[in-house]
Amino acid sequence: MPGTLPAAPQLIALDWGTSSLRAYLLGENGACLAQASGAFGILKVADGGFDATYVRVCESWQRDYGPLPVLASGMIGSRQGWLEAPYVPCPATPAQIAASLASLEASDGARIHIVPGLSCRDAQGVPDVMRGEETQLLGAIGTRDDALWVLPGTHSKWARSRSETLLDFTTYMTGELYAVLCGHSILGRLMPAATRSDAAAFARGVGYGLSTGADLSRKLFSARTLGLFGELPAEGLADYLSGLLLGAEIRDALSRSPAATEIGLIGEPGLCERYGAALEIAGVRAHAVPGDAAARGLWRVAVAAGLV
Amino acid sequence: MPGTLPAAPQLIALDWGTSSLRAYLLGENGACLAQASGAFGILKVADGGFDATYVRVCESWQRDYGPLPVLASGMIGSRQGWLEAPYVPCPATPAQIAASLASLEASDGARIHIVPGLSCRDAQGVPDVMRGEETQLLGAIGTRDDALWVLPGTHSKWARSRSETLLDFTTYMTGELYAVLCGHSILGRLMPAATRSDAAAFARGVGYGLSTGADLSRKLFSARTLGLFGELPAEGLADYLSGLLLGAEIRDALSRSPAATEIGLIGEPGLCERYGAALEIAGVRAHAVPGDAAARGLWRVAVAAGLV
Repeated sequence: MPGTLPAAPQLIALDWGTSSLRAYLLGENGACLAQASGAFGILKVADGGFDATYVRVCESWQRDYGPLPVLASGMIGSRQGWLEAPYVPCPATPAQIAASLASLEASDGARIHIVPGLSCRDAQGVPDVMRGEETQLLGAIGTRDDALWVLPGTHSKWARSRSETLLDFTTYMTGELYAVLCGHSILGRLMPAATRSDAAAFARGVGYGLSTGADLSRKLFSARTLGLFGELPAEGLADYLSGLLLGAEIRDALSRSPAATEIGLIGEPGLCERYGAALEIAGVRAHAVPGDAAARGLWRVAVAAGLV
Repeated sequence: MPGTLPAAPQLIALDWGTSSLRAYLLGENGACLAQASGAFGILKVADGGFDATYVRVCESWQRDYGPLPVLASGMIGSRQGWLEAPYVPCPATPAQIAASLASLEASDGARIHIVPGLSCRDAQGVPDVMRGEETQLLGAIGTRDDALWVLPGTHSKWARSRSETLLDFTTYMTGELYAVLCGHSILGRLMPAATRSDAAAFARGVGYGLSTGADLSRKLFSARTLGLFGELPAEGLADYLSGLLLGAEIRDALSRSPAATEIGLIGEPGLCERYGAALEIAGVRAHAVPGDAAARGLWRVAVAAGLV
């Protein structure tokens, strides 16, 4: 029923990650007119099935309102995705990112444009990368001079921006460490099957993680010993470990941005809430960025690229 | 053939850990007259089977030369072991350790004495523990005023001693982190089935692990990105990760003992060699303590306890 839309569609925006695909039909000023999503992430689509997946998700939009330009971000642009969009080095502006889109023609004749990931190097010259998060960041950054952002997840990203420029970023393997330690280490074996949320244990973990003078591999053993000494209930161990990992991440990240007094959180609401609580313990305010940042970022790139 | 021994047996010493049991028949001055070992660690002995295991391993010695006192160290004294020997707080002398032996009577009438573990607390009051390593340390420490020791393993221990006193120690979950990351994380999935030893990748990992200004959870992601950028061969990724974890451990530990110029390594030769190589990169000399340190430590405790 194309006539029911409040405005003319101008762009199909795809947030296409490892586990899921979120599709947005965007109209004037990036207003979201319709959306669709499914478990069609690049790890879940069989060999070469990206074109068929795109057609299945978007064919009614293209038929009813097309032909529309398509802009995608996320792991779909990785080496394992549909078409590799090489990393753009930081600092990067929306214009630089828009100038580096990869593109291909889908079987329905539509032009598919893919947003590149970003790279940067630390003081030791070691590279870091993001793919998908750069678009979420472009959907979040405003006109503030200097801002600090966290995108919590399996591999958390901390990014700095100045006005519209993404300056640099760092990745922490916090979420993956938490998962493998709970699932496969002695710490996980100490956790009872029936855990409960334990805010005090979480806060204690954050506090110890924030403390200076010890690296993470040393702090981790506290999750073993505090239980052994009866100073932490087994039911709270998972929350303690979560807090410990977040605290260590936050300490490291804040040491790189000592002037930061407020941080924008971008991501899944439950995870952002945990980070917000940990940041509060660290004495830093955090605000959650409204959802669908990727859709807003895709619109921004589309404008910069002249697609809309 | 009891008559073939060069000296009269005086003690049965048991190094009884999580995965294995090493039994030593010790004579005058702790000379090792015979030994036996097997995969009878406390996790491998069925419920309550400690007495039967002891009898099976030691009955010929007790029959031929007994009754002999028995002294055991390691996880056999833990809550999951034969009899719990509560932790003695650091600093601890051999005499204090010997004064805190737990003991029980075995089914063959022999008195079994068990060496306690040690505990200490860091500046934040968080407890740390060792069990078994204290006995290895007692078998290694000489009369040097100040010494620093490393016992590499699943949970590596760094300990400081002054003369015969064990001052304090810290635990790093390095070995377990390496195992769970190789076995269950994205880093492990990037490692090809056929790996090869890669000294250059190991050294590079050590160097980055030693570098300041980043916590471990951030450094870990370099094992992902260096391969992605073609700056580290996939076959060397396991060695890079191993070096990275060792480097981070060594940096943290040396920051607590900045005056250390030489370190004693106690443990499995292959692992000690890896730590020695990493310490050399950190500019610190290391010497390997001869094997069977636990047997020498058990003798030292037996002397202090008046058992021999």
